[in-house]
Parts: sequence; structure tokens; C-alpha cells
Amino acid sequence: MYNFRTDMAIERRDLYQKANKVKETPGIQVSQEQVNKDISISRVEVQNEQGEQAIGKPIGNYITIDIKNLKIATEEEITKAGEVVTKELKALMQPLVQEKEDILVVGLGNVYVTPDSLGPSVIKDIDITRHLIEHLPQYVDENTRPVSAISPGVLGTTGIETQEILTGIIEKVKPKLVIVIDALASRSIERISSTIQLADTGIVPGAGVGNKRKELTKQTLGIPVIAIGIPTVVEAATIAADSLDLVFQKMQEEAEKTATDGEKLYTIFKEITEEDKYNMIKEVLLPKDYNFIVTPKEIDELIKTMSSIVARGINASL
Amino acid sequence: MYNFRTDMAIERRDLYQKANKVKETPGIQVSQEQVNKDISISRVEVQNEQGEQAIGKPIGNYITIDIKNLKIATEEEITKAGEVVTKELKALMQPLVQEKEDILVVGLGNVYVTPDSLGPSVIKDIDITRHLIEHLPQYVDENTRPVSAISPGVLGTTGIETQEILTGIIEKVKPKLVIVIDALASRSIERISSTIQLADTGIVPGAGVGNKRKELTKQTLGIPVIAIGIPTVVEAATIAADSLDLVFQKMQEEAEKTATDGEKLYTIFKEITEEDKYNMIKEVLLPKDYNFIVTPKEIDELIKTMSSIVARGINASL
Amino acid sequence: MYNFRTDMAIERRDLYQKANKVKETPGIQVSQEQVNKDISISRVEVQNEQGEQAIGKPIGNYITIDIKNLKIATEEEITKAGEVVTKELKALMQPLVQEKEDILVVGLGNVYVTPDSLGPSVIKDIDITRHLIEHLPQYVDENTRPVSAISPGVLGTTGIETQEILTGIIEKVKPKLVIVIDALASRSIERISSTIQLADTGIVPGAGVGNKRKELTKQTLGIPVIAIGIPTVVEAATIAADSLDLVFQKMQEEAEKTATDGEKLYTIFKEITEEDKYNMIKEVLLPKDYNFIVTPKEIDELIKTMSSIVARGINASL
Amino acid sequence: MYNFRTDMAIERRDLYQKANKVKETPGIQVSQEQVNKDISISRVEVQNEQGEQAIGKPIGNYITIDIKNLKIATEEEITKAGEVVTKELKALMQPLVQEKEDILVVGLGNVYVTPDSLGPSVIKDIDITRHLIEHLPQYVDENTRPVSAISPGVLGTTGIETQEILTGIIEKVKPKLVIVIDALASRSIERISSTIQLADTGIVPGAGVGNKRKELTKQTLGIPVIAIGIPTVVEAATIAADSLDLVFQKMQEEAEKTATDGEKLYTIFKEITEEDKYNMIKEVLLPKDYNFIVTPKEIDELIKTMSSIVARGINASL
Repeated sequence: MYNFRTDMAIERRDLYQKANKVKETPGIQVSQEQVNKDISISRVEVQNEQGEQAIGKPIGNYITIDIKNLKIATEEEITKAGEVVTKELKALMQPLVQEKEDILVVGLGNVYVTPDSLGPSVIKDIDITRHLIEHLPQYVDENTRPVSAISPGVLGTTGIETQEILTGIIEKVKPKLVIVIDALASRSIERISSTIQLADTGIVPGAGVGNKRKELTKQTLGIPVIAIGIPTVVEAATIAADSLDLVFQKMQEEAEKTATDGEKLYTIFKEITEEDKYNMIKEVLLPKDYNFIVTPKEIDELIKTMSSIVARGINASL
Repeated sequence: MYNFRTDMAIERRDLYQKANKVKETPGIQVSQEQVNKDISISRVEVQNEQGEQAIGKPIGNYITIDIKNLKIATEEEITKAGEVVTKELKALMQPLVQEKEDILVVGLGNVYVTPDSLGPSVIKDIDITRHLIEHLPQYVDENTRPVSAISPGVLGTTGIETQEILTGIIEKVKPKLVIVIDALASRSIERISSTIQLADTGIVPGAGVGNKRKELTKQTLGIPVIAIGIPTVVEAATIAADSLDLVFQKMQEEAEKTATDGEKLYTIFKEITEEDKYNMIKEVLLPKDYNFIVTPKEIDELIKTMSSIVARGINASL
Repeated sequence: MYNFRTDMAIERRDLYQKANKVKETPGIQVSQEQVNKDISISRVEVQNEQGEQAIGKPIGNYITIDIKNLKIATEEEITKAGEVVTKELKALMQPLVQEKEDILVVGLGNVYVTPDSLGPSVIKDIDITRHLIEHLPQYVDENTRPVSAISPGVLGTTGIETQEILTGIIEKVKPKLVIVIDALASRSIERISSTIQLADTGIVPGAGVGNKRKELTKQTLGIPVIAIGIPTVVEAATIAADSLDLVFQKMQEEAEKTATDGEKLYTIFKEITEEDKYNMIKEVLLPKDYNFIVTPKEIDELIKTMSSIVARGINASL
Repeated sequence: MYNFRTDMAIERRDLYQKANKVKETPGIQVSQEQVNKDISISRVEVQNEQGEQAIGKPIGNYITIDIKNLKIATEEEITKAGEVVTKELKALMQPLVQEKEDILVVGLGNVYVTPDSLGPSVIKDIDITRHLIEHLPQYVDENTRPVSAISPGVLGTTGIETQEILTGIIEKVKPKLVIVIDALASRSIERISSTIQLADTGIVPGAGVGNKRKELTKQTLGIPVIAIGIPTVVEAATIAADSLDLVFQKMQEEAEKTATDGEKLYTIFKEITEEDKYNMIKEVLLPKDYNFIVTPKEIDELIKTMSSIVARGINASL
């Protein structure tokens, strides 16, 4: 299968169609919605095994919320974005849990590494009720849903697979649904800290490379898993490949106008697949230890804003 | 039983002897060691049920390391303190686990509340090996002991009892020993962030008040538990009671010299038990919401230094 | 003069009247306002030299805003508190600067010591305009007031008196008013991070002990100085003295009812001045290095909330 | 003049020679030293106006210390790197100040933006003596040099040019030398947080674009300025341009071997100057808001390690 190098279903659909030079993907249904001038939503439904095959994502729903200009978002815009998350999250949860059933919110990531601290940062702001219902029932409304939360850390600092930690906790806490928040590596610099993907299929980290052991899904955890993923980092090789693409697109346009040597360049390059371009770049970057994972300079502020949006979005849906 | 309001075995022994006006505690063996001018060690052994009864701590070993002048400790002094922790920790571990058996290190506390962040802060610096041994055995010495670690958070932010989280994880990871690091409330302002207590009996938070549900001990977790506790906060009422004690001690001394009205004060106050004094103070502070839990102004730096000492101490013993 | 150990004018007035057993202070005018159930305001005006003499604070206005239950404040309550700060600050500023004149906001304190980080934390959120007016005038409203800000650090980390740094900067920037934000040591545990004092007289750190060199006032900086002070720490000795007071007050009440030995205690203690009590306590605490400066355990959150209130309060008045 | 987009003298020299296809630069003397397998030093001396003209850096000395594998540096390697900084810094300082003359250390940058927090982070660890010599002379050795330090913040949060702040402070403190620490944007991803440049010429931010107003040099501050610069961020366009270069280099090599279409590509591309390539990329990235300033994912840890190296390096030389 094609190496998509992205967890975004919408990006994979686009890549599939580009690679196969088609305008539709079998087994995939997509719809778009423009909420306001800054916020847009794509809904990708993988309907059957054919769709699963095409984009390498399991059957289910993938909702991508894109927020423009997050760096300069006002309090009002953050509130609005939180409301969009709430609406989409509620729609995803509705078929999976009853009104008062237990939910466990999981914040993946490392609190001491800024671009990886989104998960724990969201957990800090989730309204937890499980212990109140148990110990101080007189202080909570009787319709309150039990909500618990955990930041399990990362393999590098715990030495334990997140899946092992979560199955252990789930056996004790017995929630009916897990919501997992994760900072993702993105394929596109454009999407860094400006996109939220909700999926009702869980997280399958190594899906493309056959390493199914670590996945956080209904199959491994025993209960439905909603994943909320936010891209916060990108490979240097991806930035380079993205840029190359843009450069050659531009050359092509000019070549068509002027028929200069640029045309030859275009002729050569249009035959190179995107995959090959990425591999070519990676091949030259890796030996020199140049393939940094990078993050925008303003990451501290971006994490703060995104955490606030996601935490509000979750709190209002529970 | 007497309300000791301290988890320090050595303080409880002292309080028992003071309250009962005796110079020995039945079932308790104590020895002292002065390591150098700044570091001293007390070793309390609770030998039998009689000792358990007297100071309300289970049978086992309690080692208190007191470090003076930690605020101005040099790199050298921190290294020395780490070595003392290593030596004592090794001695406690020796009868409980074999050389190569699995250990799980647990950092209790809330990473976002400075005086409560000691546990997570230590975890960050623990040398984790379990995942390396599993995934990259070629890179680790074959005698390496599998070490894993977790910061489970606190009830207020997770909604889950730490005991539930840990039993779940232990069932999956199957370690042979747990080392728990916790920031404690101390009874004495003198001890804040200058004392480390090691115990081979686990942590029994509500021991004195019969709330055994939450304890982290061999009985509840199924494997031996070594507890490393560091006092980082103190109740305002404790500061007031400590101060009152010192004031009246001084008055007594002067009364004996001068036989003034101070003597009457002393006569009255020497009959008041310490417990009554604390309760009297608490009674006047609480209704006004004055019984703050406080921490030294320099807590950021103290946590950093203490974390470094404890992490080095643990790393070198594993 | 009496050693008030507090920068709060209202506390000094109270202490003066208690010490002198009077119900009025010459040269001092006080008025109270209850804004809502959680917020109250005291306005102290030192009218002449007689008032200055009495409470050791220069002629001027001192406004104390007390906010109850800040630990559990909602977003709405924080907004309300910010509005109160704005109203009072505007009233103080009105006679000192014209609408469009330059203001320099100064955040005292050490960003790396949590209880001392309030000043820098407020500065981070101040809306700065001076550089925009200078470099990008097309992007700012022509009536915008030039606002600049600085966090000069503390003597211990800079080696330079704050006054030296500020006079240097003021000579270059030439503002017409300075607003100084500072975290104070309070005399009362009750006031920690729940009180804001605004004064149009600047800050005179060592006023009571004749060390006038470091003061930040119109006299030393050449332009009017409004001081915004928030108590964030308290001496252990103060907590002890406060508690002693409450204990003996209670004893007195009971003595009057029951005429027990408590009466003798009261008789003895009512003759001891508050100053003597504090000194007695300090005398016993200091030699043992017990006179810690302490701060509430929740200081991280309190600083965040207070910064937000003060920054909003300032931004809306400029 | 050529737009070098780098403050590294050694990189500018390389670019000059590449652009002009020469092996020597007039007026520039360069020497190399390999300290150990991980640390190497380049010393660039700009000897006269001809050299100044060639690389657009003022006459003076530029020392670049490159440290490999900083991400996995041991305590020992950090100590070694600190010693190298000390040795080079001492050599630069020697002709500029006498043994006991006052030094002011300035940490540029924003403490709340991780990749920009290097300057303030170093300042926190500088051993300050000026206030001790003034107020507690009995506690310091009589040969102690007065050292003071300041983190003036950034234009965006202060509204004041750093130069204005510093000239104001220098007039009061009257140091004989300023050492400025700054986090730089680098031209090369390879150098991010692994390189330290020392220069005895100060910092000239906008040198290439004629905006001399903000420079921190002997000319503007009145006393010698040593600059310590550490690259911590890089433009996405630079990553793309770097990658393109590597890709085409590789193509060229293969073209020479195989004489395929790659040769034509090479033929076309070898005629494009580096400047043009960068501009071409910038042109396509900018309109899409793609020209992020990025930083490695591990920036928190890198800043911590670098701060430690620089602070030790400075402390040992003062």
C-alpha cells in the first residue's frame, strides 16, 4: 500500500485520487461544510472494505475541522471553535454511549516537551466528575455523567506501552467509551495547530506498516474509542517535499506560458510520483541527520489556544 | 489512637514518648547516624504489634534522611545526598527483589501544582529500560534490570483512585517491586524540603482514620512497596502550634529563673497536651478559612534540587 | 515609629487605632464600599503630615480591593474583578496624566519564583502600543495612548537596583506616568492573593526603616507612580502571631464567661502589645531558621487568576 | 550586497566563495580547530574594509563553536563544551576589559516563547556579584569583578527598543563591557542549537538592510560588546532551499555518471544562484502563509542544555 505518512483521512483521500488520477474514491463518501469565514469542516466516511483498502483507514467517520488564523484568534473565535468541536463530538458519541454512561478521557503525550504536551494540557482542563459522584454525591446533579481522565505519559518515559496502561485502567474503571487526545505529526505545514480531526475508529499508530500491536481501538480496548488528533509537528523532509511541489507547479505554469527550459524540468518532474519525491528528499536529508521533526516557533501559545478549544469542546459534550 | 498528623515514623516516636513521658517506645528500635555535618540519618524499626500500636505505623523499616541547608546546596552536596539515598534504598530493596527483577517507579502528585510536582518531576529523570530490553535488546547490557515508571496524576484531576490505576497497570506490567515517590504534608516547618523518608511498608494515607481503601501497600498491590516521601507543605495551624510550643518553652525557662507571671502561664500551659493546643488553634483558624496549606517561597528551586537528589538516588540503585 | 510590617494602608490604620486605643486616626479619611457579595473596597486618604506621621505612609490615596473566594472564581467573577480594578485605576490616573500621554507599566519580581512572578506575568498580557504607534501608525487608531512595559528582574538576579534600571529607561522612553505591579509580603494570611492595593504614591519599600534609596516614587523617578500591590507571601512568624491573637481572643471570651485560669492568661496577655508578641515569636523562630516566608499551596493557580484580573484591569483603563 | 540571511560569519564566508567561485576571501582570515570528536572551532577574522565589504560583517573576530550530538550530551560533554566557551570568551575579553572592571550580561529574548527563551534562561544562572560588592563587601573576595545582568524583554512585549533600554541602564550602571546573549535564526537546520558564535563586534540585527538604528555595538552603546549567538529557529523556506540543494547535488552526481535527463535538470539548475532558489521558494511559500519559522521538537531540552553550557562558560570567564 501507498505510504501516506498522514493520519488525516481527508489528506489520504486526496493523495489516493491524485496518485490514481481519479475524481472519486470507491467506498469513500466526503462532504464539506463552511461554518464561517475561518472554520470549515470535512466529513469523510469510509463505508466499506473497498474504501478501507483505498486509503488504509478502518471503516468509520473522520471529521476534520480546519481553523484559519488561530495564531491571532480572539476569545470569541476560540469559543466558536469550541462549539464546533462540541457539536461534531456529540454527533460521533451519540450512537456509541448512553446519556449517563462512564467516559474516560485520555491525554497522550509528554508534558515536558512543548509540542507533545497537548494531551496532558487538555486533561488538566477537563471537568472530572467520577470521584464526586462516588464520594460527594450530594454536591453533583443526579444526571451527571461519570467522567474520568488520565495522562499516561509516553513509552520513552514510562517504558510501558500506552495500550497496556489503558487496558489495565479500563478493567478497573469500566468506562463505556474512551476519548483519546493526541498531538500528531502532520504531512502538511499548513495544518500545524490549525486542524482538529475527530474519528470514531480509535488510533492505529502503525497502521500502514503492519504494527497493529499498539493500536487504541475498540478491538484492543474492548470499548469504542473516539480519537481527537491535532497536528503539532512536521518532518523537515515533508516541508521540503511540499515546497518542491509548489516550486514545480509554478514552473509548470510558466513553462506552459513560455516554453522555456522550465518545460523540460516540468516534463521530467511530472513523471516523478510524490512518493518518489519524498523518498528522494529523505534519502539526502537522513544521512546528514537533517530530517528534524520541527514545530512552529509560536508553539507554546498554539498549544495553549488549542488545549482551550479542545477542553471546552469536550466539557460541553459530556 | 493519638492523631499524629505526620507520616514520619521518627516524629511519631518522639511524640509518643513526649505524650507518655517515657524515654523508650515498646517494640520500636531507633538508631542514628551523622553522615557529615549537613546530612544525618535516623533508622526506626517497628519490630512488632506493640510498636505498631504505639506509633500507628505498620511493622517495617523507616529511614529518615535529614539534609541541612538544602537551599544553598552545591552540586557536590547534591551528589553526596544522592549517594546517601542510593545506599539506604539499596539496603531496603535487597531483601525484597532479586538483581534483575522488574521495578515500577510511581511518581504521585500534580505536575501543574508546584509543591505537589515532586513525584512527576522525579519520574522525568528516571532511567527507563523496560521498553529498550523489549524492543532494542541489542542496545542494553544483558544484566540490565527492567525499570518502568508512571505518574498517575491525582484524584482531583483523574477522578480515579491511584490504587485502582496502579493495580490495573501492575496486572499488565507484572513488576516485582513498586517504588512510590510522594510529596508529603509535614508536621514541622523545619523539615519542609529538607527531609527524605524511605520506608519498606508502602504508603497508608488514611491509616490513622481507618480509611484503608486507598493504601498503596503489599496487601493492596500484591507486591512489596517502598515509599519515598518528601515533606513539601505544612498547615498554617501546624506553624502556629509549633510557634506556640517554642514561645511557651521559652516562657517556662524564664519563669524558672524569675518566678514572674510567666510561671503561671507556664503552669497552665504545661498541662495542655500538644494535641489540645493544635485543636485549639485549628478551631480558631478554620472558621475564618485561615488554615491554609502553605509552602516555602523558594519551592520551585527546592523541588528541582530534591528531584535531582531522589532521581540520582534511585537511578544509581537500579 | 511603630513597625507595621505591612504596606497596606488600611491595615496600618487599623493597627494604629488598636495600638493607641482610638476610633479615629488624625489626618486619615476612610470610606468603605461593598461592590457585591464577594468584592469590597476600602479607600484610605492620607490627608496631611499628621496622617503621614500616624501610619507612616506618604500623603495620597490608597485603595484596597478585597476579593473573597478567588480560588473558586468563575470567568464571570474574574471579569467583574477586572472591571473594579479598571474603575479605581482610572480614577487614580485621571488627575495625573492626559488622555494620550505615554505610560510605562513595570512588573517587579522574578519570573522563575512562582510566588514572585506576578509582576512579569501581568506584563506578558499588557496591550503594548508604543512600538506600533512609532513603526506601524497605519495599523493603530490615532487616539491610541503609547503604552510600554518592562520586567526589570530583581536585585538578586540582576545586581542592579530596580530604581537605577527604571530611571535609565525613563530618561529614554520619557513616559508621563509609571504603573508598578508588585507581589507583596502581607501581614495577614487572610489577604494572600485575594487583595489588590492601588496607590498614587508609588512604592517605598524600606519606608519604615529609613532606607529611602530604593523607593519608586515621583520624587525619585521624576514622574507620578501608581503602585498596584498584591500580597502573595507571608512570614511564618506572622502566621504564628495571627494565630496567637485569635487563640487569646478566644481565651478572653471564655475567661469572661467562666473566670477560670484562662482569665489569668488573658490578664497577662492583654498587656502584651502586638509588636511584642510578634518580636517574641520571631525571637524564638529565627535562631532555628524557622521563619520561612511561605505561600499557599495553590499559588500557581492564584497567580494566574490574579494576573488575569490585573492585566484586564490595566488594559481597559489605558 | 548579497542577502546572506545568516549572522554566522563562517557561513557568509562560505557563501561568498561559492557565489564568486573563489577559494579565498579578500580581507578574511580563517582557521579551524578540532577540539575533540564532537567539538570543533572556526575562527574568522575580518581584517579590513575589504573583508567587511565581502561578507557584510564589521571588522573583528567571529568564533564559531560547533557541538555535535548535543541532544544526547552527557554531563561530562556539557562540562567540556562550557570549558571551550570559557577559553574562547576569555581570549575575546582579554584586550577589551581589565581584570576587575564591571561587566553587564544581557539576555535577549522572550521568556514565554520556548525557542526564544535562551537569553533569559542563561541570565538566571549567571553569578551576579555587583550588589554583593556594594552591599555585603565582607562576603566577597576583594578581587571579585562586579557582574550585573538584565533580560530586557522583546520589542513586541515592551514596546521599547532594546537599544534604548540598554543605553539607559548603561548610563546608570557604567559597565566597561557588555556581553549579549541571543537566540538567532539560522540559515542551516544543521546548526540549530548545536552552534555557538562569539563575536567581539556586537550585534547588528538589520546590518544587511541598512537599518542601523537598533544595533548593539560599541558605536551605539559606548562600550565594547561581545555577542554570544545561538541558532534556535529556521525558516521553512530555508529548509526547503537546503533540501533542494542537496537533491540537485545528488542529481548532478548521478547525471555525471549516467547522462540521463537528470543532466538537463542539473544544467538548468546549476545556473540558478542560491539566492534565486531561496527567493523562488519564498515566493511560492509566502502567499500561502507557509513560510513558518520552525524549531526542533526537542527545543525545551535543547534550550536547557545550551543555557547550561553558555552560563557555565560565562561564569568561569568572569
